[in-house]
Amino acid sequence: MRGQMKFGLYIPTRLLFGAGELNQLATAGLPGKKALLVVSAGGSMARLGYLDRVRALLAQGGADSVVFDRVQPNPIRATVMEGTEVCRAEGCDFVVGLGGGSSIDTAKAIAITAAMGGDFWDYVHGGTGGGKRVERALPIVAIPTTAGTGTEVDLWGVITNEQTREKMGFGCPQIFPTMAIVDPDLMMSVPPRLTAYQGFDAFFHAAEGYISHSHSPASDLYALEAIRLLYKYLPVAVADGNNRWARIKVAWASTLAGMVESTAGCTGEHALEHALSAFKPELPHGAGLIAISGAYFKTLKNDVMKRLMKMSEKMTQQKAARPSDFLDALEVMKRECGVADLKLSQWGFTAAHLDDLVENAVTTGASMLDNDPRFLNREELREIYAASL
Amino acid sequence: MRGQMKFGLYIPTRLLFGAGELNQLATAGLPGKKALLVVSAGGSMARLGYLDRVRALLAQGGADSVVFDRVQPNPIRATVMEGTEVCRAEGCDFVVGLGGGSSIDTAKAIAITAAMGGDFWDYVHGGTGGGKRVERALPIVAIPTTAGTGTEVDLWGVITNEQTREKMGFGCPQIFPTMAIVDPDLMMSVPPRLTAYQGFDAFFHAAEGYISHSHSPASDLYALEAIRLLYKYLPVAVADGNNRWARIKVAWASTLAGMVESTAGCTGEHALEHALSAFKPELPHGAGLIAISGAYFKTLKNDVMKRLMKMSEKMTQQKAARPSDFLDALEVMKRECGVADLKLSQWGFTAAHLDDLVENAVTTGASMLDNDPRFLNREELREIYAASL
Repeated sequence: MRGQMKFGLYIPTRLLFGAGELNQLATAGLPGKKALLVVSAGGSMARLGYLDRVRALLAQGGADSVVFDRVQPNPIRATVMEGTEVCRAEGCDFVVGLGGGSSIDTAKAIAITAAMGGDFWDYVHGGTGGGKRVERALPIVAIPTTAGTGTEVDLWGVITNEQTREKMGFGCPQIFPTMAIVDPDLMMSVPPRLTAYQGFDAFFHAAEGYISHSHSPASDLYALEAIRLLYKYLPVAVADGNNRWARIKVAWASTLAGMVESTAGCTGEHALEHALSAFKPELPHGAGLIAISGAYFKTLKNDVMKRLMKMSEKMTQQKAARPSDFLDALEVMKRECGVADLKLSQWGFTAAHLDDLVENAVTTGASMLDNDPRFLNREELREIYAASL
Repeated sequence: MRGQMKFGLYIPTRLLFGAGELNQLATAGLPGKKALLVVSAGGSMARLGYLDRVRALLAQGGADSVVFDRVQPNPIRATVMEGTEVCRAEGCDFVVGLGGGSSIDTAKAIAITAAMGGDFWDYVHGGTGGGKRVERALPIVAIPTTAGTGTEVDLWGVITNEQTREKMGFGCPQIFPTMAIVDPDLMMSVPPRLTAYQGFDAFFHAAEGYISHSHSPASDLYALEAIRLLYKYLPVAVADGNNRWARIKVAWASTLAGMVESTAGCTGEHALEHALSAFKPELPHGAGLIAISGAYFKTLKNDVMKRLMKMSEKMTQQKAARPSDFLDALEVMKRECGVADLKLSQWGFTAAHLDDLVENAVTTGASMLDNDPRFLNREELREIYAASL
């Protein structure tokens, strides 16, 4: 927050939220005539019947669609360029991202490159990115099938440069989705462990935003509500994936946390995690965050005492006495979600990786590290990793 | 709220909030090359120096401006048409509303008629309005100098048809301002009584939205925060207009309450008030609301018990025991703001007006009455007026 309560608030995405609301896709007014429909390579969207359903709804809405089903977890630059070629060759005038964060972020990246031309990495700021300004992007419709990234209501995406091993965030107002349909019914089949990983990703979007340098009265409102809802309902959704009410609450919390990303932004915790999954793409983003979260928030314990206590109060609904109450509540939540024992060593990280990880985080995550409530030096970053092995 | 937590959220306005933020007008990116600058006929914008300052900032931002300074309190259709003619004759490609709700709402109405052609009343839905669809409007920049209407972040305006004595709301997504600059420094000179009237207008936007049929998890979040802030800071701003911190908090609460109007909407209380000021244009909108508020909320006391208690808790920060705790807290707030004794008879209303008032409210305010948590029949509406004489 700059100075004395000065802030901006701009989230132009039209959100349609609710169980069954996917059907609105046919009537809500599509932003074009031919969609590039971006989904993962795994085939789950076809298996679950979502792909056919979305294509049928697009057709009802008057739009043709071309499927691009090549997106990997931790999507890479080469895939963005491949999708861009299909998009241009087929004459698509908008993109639809259907799936988890990987599919929607890839759709956002394609929307930029298809409209601007050139290589996607030209438009990445920081690291080896070209730092070019994005003037326009194709309109984007986001349909998340997981509750975690919040990318459906934010101006960010994350793509990995497979050649340079940089997992980099990119962002500009042009990639706010025109429309986001958040239908919790599409999330019912996410298995327990992924539900936990994704839900904690949302939790940390909110918690990082709340302690961040750039927090505002608007982001605080979104963040505290997301934190309250996730503490209460994420363990329920993990324990019983068929609990529709819990799925609905977790989905709304994830979208709220996305609105935090659009109004405050992530901090060093996310920078540290991006470095981890740049080295080990098989590490789920949420799992990486969970593994380092205890050490990260402990390091900042005395810098944002009041804010940690406030988050603790929203979680436990009890008066907080000290900042470590937040650390305790976080441990309780992890335990209830069955993810209290995650260690980086389970993904093969050892003390030998620490220097490279810190170097990668500092290089690729500078803007997020700048958003920490207090600047963490390399030694401190190294210790957060070391404590999480 | 439709069914089981289904809702939409769409507020595309770019908000710049903060003391001194008016200066951003020059650099934030204007939506056109020539502005129709809409201000009140009273001359206060010129006297306070705001008019020259805004013109200079527009010029710095690369835009010419033409001043239209004919707006009355409770602005009328004829003024909208007059402004539209100036706008077209001068070739303005965007409008700037600078001032209170009257100026900004007039700017919104001109934005419609200048872009669509025809008579403004063609685009009003309900009453004698033509019910035509708005396809486009000129871009709107809203710069409020009062804290109350929230019109800077909503899709509504209110214009009176002077011939038919209808004070009617109009609304469509095209009149969301492109940009809203809420600079509490522009509100420092509002005298105590008007500060109270305007602040209570914001309070009731939030409170009505919170109990409304159309409330959603998003509107609830905005409403409860606005209610909390106004209970705490409005009496401070009324008692000491130079208290900048209180002005800032009240301004933010008013904008939040505008976001409630965009996500939930007003209820019968506003319908009842519009009828009052349609008959007596000298009655300030906020004063009318304050006068009828006790009777209005008392009538609905047993229909939204939990919600009244929740609002009371946000206000007093104490556990509520019964719905009338809200009525008590409201009385405390009125007393602290020096407006506890407002009666409709002070503006010349008598029992002889009751039938006409009810008729007007039912005719012009149907959609707001439909948004009440329970439908109030004519007899009940009459009794609310009668109890407020």
